[in-house]
Amino acid sequence: MGIVVQNIDRADPLVIDGLAACGVATVHEAQGRTGLLASYMRPIYRGKAIAGSAVTILAPPADNWMLHVAIEQVKSGDVIVLATTSPSDAGYFGDLLATSAQARGCRGLIIDAGVRDVVDLEKMGFPVWSKAICAQGTIKETLGSVNIPVVCAGAAVEPGDVVVADDDGVCVVKRVDAAGVLEKAQARVANEEAKRKRLASGELGLDMYQMRERLAQKGLRYV
Amino acid sequence: MGIVVQNIDRADPLVIDGLAACGVATVHEAQGRTGLLASYMRPIYRGKAIAGSAVTILAPPADNWMLHVAIEQVKSGDVIVLATTSPSDAGYFGDLLATSAQARGCRGLIIDAGVRDVVDLEKMGFPVWSKAICAQGTIKETLGSVNIPVVCAGAAVEPGDVVVADDDGVCVVKRVDAAGVLEKAQARVANEEAKRKRLASGELGLDMYQMRERLAQKGLRYV
Amino acid sequence: MGIVVQNIDRADPLVIDGLAACGVATVHEAQGRTGLLASYMRPIYRGKAIAGSAVTILAPPADNWMLHVAIEQVKSGDVIVLATTSPSDAGYFGDLLATSAQARGCRGLIIDAGVRDVVDLEKMGFPVWSKAICAQGTIKETLGSVNIPVVCAGAAVEPGDVVVADDDGVCVVKRVDAAGVLEKAQARVANEEAKRKRLASGELGLDMYQMRERLAQKGLRYV
Amino acid sequence: MGIVVQNIDRADPLVIDGLAACGVATVHEAQGRTGLLASYMRPIYRGKAIAGSAVTILAPPADNWMLHVAIEQVKSGDVIVLATTSPSDAGYFGDLLATSAQARGCRGLIIDAGVRDVVDLEKMGFPVWSKAICAQGTIKETLGSVNIPVVCAGAAVEPGDVVVADDDGVCVVKRVDAAGVLEKAQARVANEEAKRKRLASGELGLDMYQMRERLAQKGLRYV
Amino acid sequence: MGIVVQNIDRADPLVIDGLAACGVATVHEAQGRTGLLASYMRPIYRGKAIAGSAVTILAPPADNWMLHVAIEQVKSGDVIVLATTSPSDAGYFGDLLATSAQARGCRGLIIDAGVRDVVDLEKMGFPVWSKAICAQGTIKETLGSVNIPVVCAGAAVEPGDVVVADDDGVCVVKRVDAAGVLEKAQARVANEEAKRKRLASGELGLDMYQMRERLAQKGLRYV
Amino acid sequence: MGIVVQNIDRADPLVIDGLAACGVATVHEAQGRTGLLASYMRPIYRGKAIAGSAVTILAPPADNWMLHVAIEQVKSGDVIVLATTSPSDAGYFGDLLATSAQARGCRGLIIDAGVRDVVDLEKMGFPVWSKAICAQGTIKETLGSVNIPVVCAGAAVEPGDVVVADDDGVCVVKRVDAAGVLEKAQARVANEEAKRKRLASGELGLDMYQMRERLAQKGLRYV
Repeated sequence: MGIVVQNIDRADPLVIDGLAACGVATVHEAQGRTGLLASYMRPIYRGKAIAGSAVTILAPPADNWMLHVAIEQVKSGDVIVLATTSPSDAGYFGDLLATSAQARGCRGLIIDAGVRDVVDLEKMGFPVWSKAICAQGTIKETLGSVNIPVVCAGAAVEPGDVVVADDDGVCVVKRVDAAGVLEKAQARVANEEAKRKRLASGELGLDMYQMRERLAQKGLRYV
Repeated sequence: MGIVVQNIDRADPLVIDGLAACGVATVHEAQGRTGLLASYMRPIYRGKAIAGSAVTILAPPADNWMLHVAIEQVKSGDVIVLATTSPSDAGYFGDLLATSAQARGCRGLIIDAGVRDVVDLEKMGFPVWSKAICAQGTIKETLGSVNIPVVCAGAAVEPGDVVVADDDGVCVVKRVDAAGVLEKAQARVANEEAKRKRLASGELGLDMYQMRERLAQKGLRYV
Repeated sequence: MGIVVQNIDRADPLVIDGLAACGVATVHEAQGRTGLLASYMRPIYRGKAIAGSAVTILAPPADNWMLHVAIEQVKSGDVIVLATTSPSDAGYFGDLLATSAQARGCRGLIIDAGVRDVVDLEKMGFPVWSKAICAQGTIKETLGSVNIPVVCAGAAVEPGDVVVADDDGVCVVKRVDAAGVLEKAQARVANEEAKRKRLASGELGLDMYQMRERLAQKGLRYV
Repeated sequence: MGIVVQNIDRADPLVIDGLAACGVATVHEAQGRTGLLASYMRPIYRGKAIAGSAVTILAPPADNWMLHVAIEQVKSGDVIVLATTSPSDAGYFGDLLATSAQARGCRGLIIDAGVRDVVDLEKMGFPVWSKAICAQGTIKETLGSVNIPVVCAGAAVEPGDVVVADDDGVCVVKRVDAAGVLEKAQARVANEEAKRKRLASGELGLDMYQMRERLAQKGLRYV
Repeated sequence: MGIVVQNIDRADPLVIDGLAACGVATVHEAQGRTGLLASYMRPIYRGKAIAGSAVTILAPPADNWMLHVAIEQVKSGDVIVLATTSPSDAGYFGDLLATSAQARGCRGLIIDAGVRDVVDLEKMGFPVWSKAICAQGTIKETLGSVNIPVVCAGAAVEPGDVVVADDDGVCVVKRVDAAGVLEKAQARVANEEAKRKRLASGELGLDMYQMRERLAQKGLRYV
Repeated sequence: MGIVVQNIDRADPLVIDGLAACGVATVHEAQGRTGLLASYMRPIYRGKAIAGSAVTILAPPADNWMLHVAIEQVKSGDVIVLATTSPSDAGYFGDLLATSAQARGCRGLIIDAGVRDVVDLEKMGFPVWSKAICAQGTIKETLGSVNIPVVCAGAAVEPGDVVVADDDGVCVVKRVDAAGVLEKAQARVANEEAKRKRLASGELGLDMYQMRERLAQKGLRYV
């Protein structure tokens, strides 16, 4: 505890933006169905889709001091990822911290705890995925760490990993895998477009994916 | 397991549409306060009110194979109702399956599990009531059944029952009771309109429903 | 049980409206981080910010009789606060009761239970903060009390206390403290405006709040 | 609502006792992994394993009147199964009702709600599987029904079905299937004994179940 | 915050011990079904039944400093009641604090948070009712208060109120009402003994409580 | 997915046994309050305290195939740690697998999912810490991995890390840190013994830890 790692590696910005465009569900599939945060992490308002390099925080319960420390480490295009040492719903983050983070180019916050001032955050266009919306204030008494590996909402996140977030939730991509995952994700997107047209025309998934034989082998009976 | 019932009886389409117009709360009251699914079943976006004949699915946890099988059984105006054999938040259903279901005339999905691609589902106007929004992918390995009786979110649903869903939740009406329930529900709607006017004019429920005497008998004291 | 207190003291209407304008998070901070209801209390629709004098109800589970009794006690500008004697998600309140409450000048409902007819409530502009949205009907069999002290969602509320509610949640201010809390809250609002500008210009909280020295004393290490 | 079915069919007592001896996990497997109640249903004390014919109750929230009605319908060897019309943790059942039920030969209670007097119930040797232990009292104001089909903790139960309960949870077996399920369950028990010995001697499941080839086909890699 | 009230009034020790002997369910009934803490408050081990005067604590999340302050205020026969300003599962209390509390004559702890060292606590015979068992350590940084009114697990508790706890949960009795509640509770106990005998002999509650007529009036039908 | 790492490094057996003797709460403190699994992980029976080297499993929801694969990798003194790719309460593990694991010298199981046959597991003396007790059966269809880094109940666990578990919960110690953590943990144990005696004699923590001055500086007021 009490460590701030100042220099972290980040993925290629074009790769990051490409992953944001693919979306969480596709990215999660493209990397073998890994990296998803727990489904209780919900956007405080709908309609945002972002990706960015993770600046990680491990924070004590109901203590938001490390957010101030972390914001200094943020570079344009980053996303802050906050995990806690024990569960908390308290409101670590509000419009003042969002103003500061946004001034540094921060694209959003992923927090396994609570946030407040959600009306202001939406007006500012600053997206947050959180466990709770809660006005409860926090203190500034105990150190945590910045840019160390954390477990946030059940997923391991290392500083510099790419975090992708939209209305479906949040997914983390290992920094070194990001380019490869993007490639697979874009292939999925292209592939899905063709499938969508066939399905829209009334073709059944049973036929398009040639499932009938395998279903019969497993013993499916039509009565 | 592994059974697909192909021919199910459905209620009269006019009755079904009438129930949708009455809404969940009214229908639930009209049939004696039964048939409501658990309140954790929430719409993925607000503002939709539907009813349809249930095409039911009993699916293994995190396995969405039976959705493909069920879509073939859907007729225009149906609603798919998916229950699981053990609890799962995984994302069984996304924009491709919605495209296919919509092409078959499916009016919506009631799922005691998770869904994904919720931005796309809203754009398509395909409504879903679910336990979770979750990008987690599913597999296609284990058979379930289609059009057998299921328990979905605490309510027993038989294939062909009428499912009514709106922002208040989801209610199921037995197929054979549907016409009678509609009659009672429409009577309630008519009756409520008159009450609404009296209450809006400032008349108290205490007087309108003649509650004062019974309250006094029970011992209510004003101090 | 079975008591209705008819005359309660209320705070100054100007103070009440001032608190509404400050918002929940600020009011909660201004009174020393107390008075917040549990974060599971969520608005049934977003964008409303209200305050009012609490007309309190202690109600049996799944029995909404006392709401009718309470509405008679409502004066213009009041907010109804309903607690239950044992947990319930049932839908105690819908559009008819909202019509009646609104006709009496009621500004909203805080209910540690469920509500229904949420589409109608939003159309009417009648805000509710609740534990659940649930169509389940309630009965009128057992007495509760009106305008006695209650514990609602973990917070003690006395009749006449000021309840403040917005998208961040719900906070209660003791009636006798309301004017003092407003003063402190308004001071915070004024103070925050200056901070917001400095942070927006890129100044760090670390510098603005002079945190660096204390962080170093606690042992924070930059690596 | 308000119906008491007085004559229900029951399974063969020898079959019922046989199912109790097999236990919940084995019975659940023997009938194709169906019939299990939700895992939140826990015994109020450990070490009991029972089975009996279901006398079902559908009860209003926090109203235990129907328990008195149901006890009259209990025959020696029955198990009471109580479901509620909306969720409740209240303490429907305590030592007086247990005394009465036990006097009628009731073997236990399965209740999707709360119980109290748990120290006394354990002393009496009266087992209960419940959602909660809660001292909250209930009322006797609203009718429910006895011996109608119910959904209890997510499982459909009909009067006369066989309910099996032990420290692993609760499973329901359709009355007409009971003899066949017992046969399969006993076959499993016999079969497991042989497996247990082989595994205890150090033989691996990988070999005993001949899993290695299929794992390799699926692509498992040892590194 | 930051207040320690040193002199509190306590109820008569004989009354307190009498309430412990009656038990939570009976006391809760005797005072009109009020005062019960939420059912998630569970004993860390079974078989203890206590009552004592509440020494209350309002503590910050994951900060157990005030427990040390409170122990100085404990007199023989007291029970510590800890509420938090925002939810926490952290382990505020372990064997060292229990040793200290026990040395002061403290009878037990009611804590709306976590405890640890539960094996040692059971060996010491020091009972705890808590929301969680959790080894997570706490800090000593922020003041709370001792012997102020608190809301613990949904119930309002004032210092000096009588807290009754057993395997059914926890109930609080207002200090000034304690003697009267004891009288009613003891009357219930005496009354229940007679009822128990009649029920044990096979008499039905339907007859003993003369319920048949009222059930028929409500419309109960036997089929 | 689909990887089995066969050779993992383990900590010194004496260190492992030393950590077990210190217990979870002490070990967690000794390593700076890190490594604790979520408090929902509870022992299926009380009174066991173990430590061992982690053999990790990442398993699909409701699919226990990898347990068979993992048991082959177990060496005497190991503990199996199972995480899932998406949440599941299903019963992955019962008496047959426990027989096999025990035959290999496995000391216990930590599983972020369900187990069954808990009566047998207790009789065998095979301890399990789990999220649920659930009889629901699982399948053997989809590969997971063995001995890769996992996140189990919110904590990152690498193969060969030391897992410590007792009635307070579960804590993981990095393999390379184990000897150092043991040293600190044993120092704490020694230190606590002296404190315990002083507290038992009636000395207050306020004095023993010299807290009074700092409390006064923070502003604590005695009234």
